[in-house]
Amino acid sequence: MTQHSMYSILDRKKRGAELSKSEIKFFIDGLMDGSVEDYQASALLMAIFLQGMTKEETADLTDAMLYSGKVLKFDGDNVVDKHSTGGIGDKTSFILAPIAAACGVKVPMIAGRGLGFTGGTVDKIESIKGFKTNLGLKEFERRLKEKGIVLIGQTGEIAPADKKIYALRDVTATIDSIPLITASIMSKKLAEGANGIVMDIKIGSGAFMKTKAQARKLSKSIISTAKRFNKKSVCLITDMNQPLGNAVGNSLEMIESIEVLKNKGPKDLTDISLALAAHMIHIGGIEKSYNKALARAKKALRDGSALEEFKDLIKSQNGDMRVFDDYQAFDLAENKTTLNSPISGYIKSFANSEIGFMCTELGGGRKVASDKIDVGVGFYFHKKVGDKVKKNEPIVTIYYRKKDSKKVDIIKDKMEKSVIKFSKSKIVKPDLIKDILSN
Amino acid sequence: MTQHSMYSILDRKKRGAELSKSEIKFFIDGLMDGSVEDYQASALLMAIFLQGMTKEETADLTDAMLYSGKVLKFDGDNVVDKHSTGGIGDKTSFILAPIAAACGVKVPMIAGRGLGFTGGTVDKIESIKGFKTNLGLKEFERRLKEKGIVLIGQTGEIAPADKKIYALRDVTATIDSIPLITASIMSKKLAEGANGIVMDIKIGSGAFMKTKAQARKLSKSIISTAKRFNKKSVCLITDMNQPLGNAVGNSLEMIESIEVLKNKGPKDLTDISLALAAHMIHIGGIEKSYNKALARAKKALRDGSALEEFKDLIKSQNGDMRVFDDYQAFDLAENKTTLNSPISGYIKSFANSEIGFMCTELGGGRKVASDKIDVGVGFYFHKKVGDKVKKNEPIVTIYYRKKDSKKVDIIKDKMEKSVIKFSKSKIVKPDLIKDILSN
Repeated sequence: MTQHSMYSILDRKKRGAELSKSEIKFFIDGLMDGSVEDYQASALLMAIFLQGMTKEETADLTDAMLYSGKVLKFDGDNVVDKHSTGGIGDKTSFILAPIAAACGVKVPMIAGRGLGFTGGTVDKIESIKGFKTNLGLKEFERRLKEKGIVLIGQTGEIAPADKKIYALRDVTATIDSIPLITASIMSKKLAEGANGIVMDIKIGSGAFMKTKAQARKLSKSIISTAKRFNKKSVCLITDMNQPLGNAVGNSLEMIESIEVLKNKGPKDLTDISLALAAHMIHIGGIEKSYNKALARAKKALRDGSALEEFKDLIKSQNGDMRVFDDYQAFDLAENKTTLNSPISGYIKSFANSEIGFMCTELGGGRKVASDKIDVGVGFYFHKKVGDKVKKNEPIVTIYYRKKDSKKVDIIKDKMEKSVIKFSKSKIVKPDLIKDILSN
Repeated sequence: MTQHSMYSILDRKKRGAELSKSEIKFFIDGLMDGSVEDYQASALLMAIFLQGMTKEETADLTDAMLYSGKVLKFDGDNVVDKHSTGGIGDKTSFILAPIAAACGVKVPMIAGRGLGFTGGTVDKIESIKGFKTNLGLKEFERRLKEKGIVLIGQTGEIAPADKKIYALRDVTATIDSIPLITASIMSKKLAEGANGIVMDIKIGSGAFMKTKAQARKLSKSIISTAKRFNKKSVCLITDMNQPLGNAVGNSLEMIESIEVLKNKGPKDLTDISLALAAHMIHIGGIEKSYNKALARAKKALRDGSALEEFKDLIKSQNGDMRVFDDYQAFDLAENKTTLNSPISGYIKSFANSEIGFMCTELGGGRKVASDKIDVGVGFYFHKKVGDKVKKNEPIVTIYYRKKDSKKVDIIKDKMEKSVIKFSKSKIVKPDLIKDILSN
């Protein structure tokens, strides 16, 4: 084997050279066994941020990170996972996973907790009391094979190099790098045994990616990497300029998800969940065309089989089944207040990330990783961009704890004055899906 | 004061923004008090390497590093130091300092040890037995005022931020950054109280800078920074495509320096030392023109007053005075072997850095910082680029310890086959001084 050193790897990358597969493996192996220091790793991450990586390097980095931990393998094309770059009110996983599973897709979900604004997938589903996410990889494998759907929290056994690298990126302002994002997502998805990946890449004021151009770049990087591992992938670029659905906050979002599964949910959330599920059904090889897959997804939602899949998931992972009949079984905050429209007109826009930060202010998200989340607080938006509103009509209901009464006054004021923009003239409703790329 | 965070500083620099004085101070203060982690510092150094720094940022970084430790202040323009970017056989300090001091310049030398090839200034002068370099800053100050010349080793009291940053740059391949080099040199020179700085920027196969363009960039950065601190500076860009003088190796270089002071040294080393000393005399305000300063420097060398200054320095810092009359007082290696010319013709070139590495192989330099240096080994080159040689005429004498007999065979072979290139046709002798820039 060639003898590498971190110094020469840093020196080459800073000059914009393409690193070899064995150089990248040397870096990841060294990071894991401690022979590469954090200060060298972070300097390399910054060099990668600024000099970029080729498709080959991105695939090699994905590969090295993937094999830093356990790698699961399932037979059959029908093991398909979905990943979202995240946004405000994004709860599609709880809807698309049971839809896809009801149609024969096996959905291996290893999900994260949230930091910054609102909770993550694991935080949200834990608003259903008793739901167990720490099942271990053996159990994860068994359940996926048997049940076709399982949801666990992130485990140190899967792509541990990603955990180390992410922690460094998080404190060195190197998160928003296309190759690093690609390797982070793909190493985890490939390690959990997915044979197809559907990506929901959000753009807009409440998303990590601000522009369609950025999102297309990430899509192409994901697709090219998937190709190199002989996996199918589809990337949907979707709108995140306003909350998805009406609910923001952990319990509120779970309730809304159940409503969608009961065919009573908001149209935007339903439509995007169906589209994502249909792509999973399609690339999972269950249906030969996307249109057929979409029809099948709609049927599974309409006939209640998706809801049954979800109930089965909750039951099998020890969750409180009362939530399906009585939303009081959620620990919803006891105080509510509603902001009414100051004018008659239309909703023009939401400062979406502000909504996320305000939810965190009320306890619904973490400021630091050790914070405990309050699953009961949040917002319910009665109106969306383009909706007609009458003066004094309710716009948003805020769920909060009594101790935060003063905060809520400030939040309401902010909502009215800067977060929600109104218009006298008609506003066109934004397209939900902006672009679709696939291999 | 504005509230900064390393995250936002990293985020701004990675996007190519200009950091403010208070952001840079926040970074350096945090590095010193431990609130900034090494992995954040190294990521910032890489971002600075790739995005550069403006003149303002470079001056602000110099300022913050300068005030990370003690700052000496001397009255009068005549406190002038010289700094060399280093090279093979570079021993001008031992010659120019006593010349300048004999002419009324105060020369505050805080010098380093060597790593990589050959020793540093402190290693070289320590080949004179008993010479004390750890005098402390108080004593340094007193001696400079009284005697006008003093040479000590680097101390943690002067610009400690540079020490931390240099250690990180050294392991993250961020050494060769013009703003970082500038701040490193200037923070130390300004902290030691220099009111003028003469820089010897070496270019060529045995230097850190390979091209004149690079050297001019560094010169301009040094000069612009000096200007902002109201200091005079002159940068000489000089040749380092062959060893300076004839001797390479610690004791051999000290002997050669004494020979120059005795007016018996090689012309290249004598000329460059005189030029550098003359610039010090000139910007130190001793003489109104460079030409007058040069004449004065020549006189001080010719009439022995420079040698007397050097003797005085060695004596006052406890060095073995026998060296001036008997070079046996140096611990020279007992074994010698000579490489003779394989052809009749001319010396074409030297692979100069190879010579440095071979000196380290024999023990004359350090591979790692903890290595002990053997001051007795080295090379004496009887011929220089452009010199006529006859077949079998001595080219280089190698001084080595018996244990390295086998190594020496390999070194001789390498010297003949690849390090020294010969030519049948006449070779023009290179210019010693390539360019001069000043403010």
